[in-house]
Amino acid sequence: MISEEKLQKYQDWIFQISAYQMALALISIDKMTVAPPAGGPYRDARTAWLSGEKFSLETDPEMFRLLQEMKDDPDLDGDTRRAAYLYWRKASHTICIPKEEFVSSEELTNQAYDAWYRAKMADDYSLFRPYLEKIIENKKKFYGYRGSSASIYDQMLDDNEPGMNEAKYDAFFADVKGRLIPLLRKVCAAAPIDTSFLHRNYPAAQQKKFTEEHLLPYLNYDPSWGYQNETEHPFTYWTCENDCRTTTKYLPDNVTAAIFSTVHEVGHATFEHDIDPKYDGMILSEGVSAAMHESQSRLCENYLGRTHAFWEANFPALQAEFPDQLGGIPLDDFVRASNAAIPGLLRLEADELTYPLHIVIRYEIEKDLFDGRIGTEDLEKVWNEKYREYLGVEVPNSRDGILQDVHWCEGSFGYFPTYALGSAYAAQIVHKMREDIDVDEALRSGHYERCMNWLKENVHRYGCRYDAPEIIRRATGEEFSWNYYLDDLERKYTELYHL
Amino acid sequence: MISEEKLQKYQDWIFQISAYQMALALISIDKMTVAPPAGGPYRDARTAWLSGEKFSLETDPEMFRLLQEMKDDPDLDGDTRRAAYLYWRKASHTICIPKEEFVSSEELTNQAYDAWYRAKMADDYSLFRPYLEKIIENKKKFYGYRGSSASIYDQMLDDNEPGMNEAKYDAFFADVKGRLIPLLRKVCAAAPIDTSFLHRNYPAAQQKKFTEEHLLPYLNYDPSWGYQNETEHPFTYWTCENDCRTTTKYLPDNVTAAIFSTVHEVGHATFEHDIDPKYDGMILSEGVSAAMHESQSRLCENYLGRTHAFWEANFPALQAEFPDQLGGIPLDDFVRASNAAIPGLLRLEADELTYPLHIVIRYEIEKDLFDGRIGTEDLEKVWNEKYREYLGVEVPNSRDGILQDVHWCEGSFGYFPTYALGSAYAAQIVHKMREDIDVDEALRSGHYERCMNWLKENVHRYGCRYDAPEIIRRATGEEFSWNYYLDDLERKYTELYHL
Repeated sequence: MISEEKLQKYQDWIFQISAYQMALALISIDKMTVAPPAGGPYRDARTAWLSGEKFSLETDPEMFRLLQEMKDDPDLDGDTRRAAYLYWRKASHTICIPKEEFVSSEELTNQAYDAWYRAKMADDYSLFRPYLEKIIENKKKFYGYRGSSASIYDQMLDDNEPGMNEAKYDAFFADVKGRLIPLLRKVCAAAPIDTSFLHRNYPAAQQKKFTEEHLLPYLNYDPSWGYQNETEHPFTYWTCENDCRTTTKYLPDNVTAAIFSTVHEVGHATFEHDIDPKYDGMILSEGVSAAMHESQSRLCENYLGRTHAFWEANFPALQAEFPDQLGGIPLDDFVRASNAAIPGLLRLEADELTYPLHIVIRYEIEKDLFDGRIGTEDLEKVWNEKYREYLGVEVPNSRDGILQDVHWCEGSFGYFPTYALGSAYAAQIVHKMREDIDVDEALRSGHYERCMNWLKENVHRYGCRYDAPEIIRRATGEEFSWNYYLDDLERKYTELYHL
Repeated sequence: MISEEKLQKYQDWIFQISAYQMALALISIDKMTVAPPAGGPYRDARTAWLSGEKFSLETDPEMFRLLQEMKDDPDLDGDTRRAAYLYWRKASHTICIPKEEFVSSEELTNQAYDAWYRAKMADDYSLFRPYLEKIIENKKKFYGYRGSSASIYDQMLDDNEPGMNEAKYDAFFADVKGRLIPLLRKVCAAAPIDTSFLHRNYPAAQQKKFTEEHLLPYLNYDPSWGYQNETEHPFTYWTCENDCRTTTKYLPDNVTAAIFSTVHEVGHATFEHDIDPKYDGMILSEGVSAAMHESQSRLCENYLGRTHAFWEANFPALQAEFPDQLGGIPLDDFVRASNAAIPGLLRLEADELTYPLHIVIRYEIEKDLFDGRIGTEDLEKVWNEKYREYLGVEVPNSRDGILQDVHWCEGSFGYFPTYALGSAYAAQIVHKMREDIDVDEALRSGHYERCMNWLKENVHRYGCRYDAPEIIRRATGEEFSWNYYLDDLERKYTELYHL
């Protein structure tokens, strides 16, 4: 029986961690949206120190013992035991790291973000490489402290998606490559779909107007709890209960990029907004597995946002904003173009079919990097070779190649695979959703919330009360299978390209 | 002789305080610009807790003893002794407050901001009054803990501007009223200046464009260290070295309000940017007295921004942005209109002549409030009476009356008088500047930086190394006298209105 006093201490501890978390989230959002660059070094040093204060709390030995006790205490309710377990698991991964090393690694990743941004703008990987080198060194050292018998990359995969490892992803990606590369080759050999009108001149200010005045309201992204800004690399952050921040990036030569990125990020946002409020202030309302999170954003982006029904509701407003560019384009042509599979350089702008191949490339590179088969000096060469091999495209520069993604400068490895896995979760979930409700009718008639309500009831509300496989079981009545995903893609593209 | 170890501890302590300060500044800026309202209560509770952590550091008894030792230690250099004195002075005011009371008062002021905003939007003082009541109660309690023999309002005045008190302000404001109210009466009786073209329809988006593309570059507000956003009540915050945030508010029916507010805030920003970098990371580069700060912002706004020379450089660009509204207006008419004295409701939009009368009203009300002659229930009535008496205007609602300013909801009392005192400092300083350099030629030819360089050399670089009277002595070679200020206003308005 754990004393009331100890439980109160636990509550205070959670609150204190969440206070640092909120501050650090706001600092980070600010940095990636509007912060003046010359302040960077001064902010970064202080941010790292604050991260250290949070780290001290999270790895407090006394609290670690209490969590250990709590997670197995049959007198506590299941929610509390689960929350204690999740805090304990997180602490068990970091308690072995010396605080000074943690703090300097935090400062490094903050500096690395600026270095990445500068390198990307200068189109010069060599400006970023020294930072990446040190980040990888730190990661190896920190994972070494854990003393696990699993490989570092296995541990990274498990951290992002509990239960996953190289063997499981290898099997998944073998199927992805085995089925989608041949399909893509057939698509590329077929009569191409005209997408040229998507790439006319679409001024950013007008895209923003369409997004803010039409799209966000359609998606029920409510300004009372969510705010959207712009950044180099779109993201979603929850700073605390009822406070979500999303970002997008408007590309003047691509009218759908910011739209699908917005639908994607608002998918993330809605997920956490819909978590059962009884979990507020517990870890259960955050820290959901990465693939589960991506399943919800990618479900919104691809299985809702790219449908004909979605555009029946939204295309007229887009046309009205861009009469010269889209006035003469029939709806059907626009929807076909928005779904066309065209091998390209950028993951963020990729279509549904080529997207998982962008992920395979990153997965294989990360695996080789941490298993010691390649070093940072080989990255750009390997990257470009794989793009040629899997997607048939030549990478002309670093900016749209090795430097396109923000993840590595943040020390985030083992995350990319969750985008593909999440897409596969999404396919299975949406299959069940379509059995239960008329998704197309909901989208067509401006009732996006009907889809969200189904997701809330069957997926969102759980937060991370259960691991992903259990949530999929509850939502769909079946074990997870990626066949839904690959079957869907085969069916969709066979039809779209009349293969 | 203070040990190296202790001095290192002092350095670490400063850094830690500055880390919380940065986080709290960013949280506050976020709150006042873009934060979604539903997150307010959750953010506010955590913000208050973080303020409490900073409070614990600032009032650490061991550090307090060290500061006491340092401030008088002849072995330390003058800069370090001054910094230690300023930290010590600040701590000596707060060390007497119980931490829980401090934290809950911080939470209250955060909540009060939202309440003030809601009350202002709803035009209903009664929604804000309960918060104001509690804020005043807390202030009285906290000042009571200090056990000073000075009155509470005297202490508040001294906190904002060291050395000032009711007696000194009474003398100053007696002259302000004695000389400016009769002057204003004469102005009001004279032939009015046409200002109607300033109040045509000026869409906010275009004002923003002019500000960002033309005005900010003219003012040398450099995006590498400064970022401007929008808010209900314009402010300037430094989050850390090389990182300044300013805000403005675009009023569609007033083309100059946001311009003068921008010049004002960038004046604040430039001040701290120009402080000698050897003071970086010491309290000497911040916490400059309020009137000294306001002197620099109001110098820029009034003694530079309202001159004919300033508009010779800037009016063509403004006309180009608003050809329909301003195309046919001669420069001279525009400058006259921008200087016209017209009694109005809003301090923020007030001209130079009526401005100090808006301040007198606030000063007298605050004095009566803390000296117990009136309560929050009387505020609106007293406010409206004084506006009638001093400015001859009827206050038609709360929004543009008692609720117009943000200060009280932040618990900021005794600050308003520094705007008028700062204007008087500015008059004396600019008088000397005009002896040394050709201000008009600098403004006319797009060399605003020549004025800033003079201020940097003679005022800004000191930060708060010295108190305001000493800086004025160094900058002008004379003791402070408000005659420059009142003489200037009399000369200016006598000429402008052909009195």
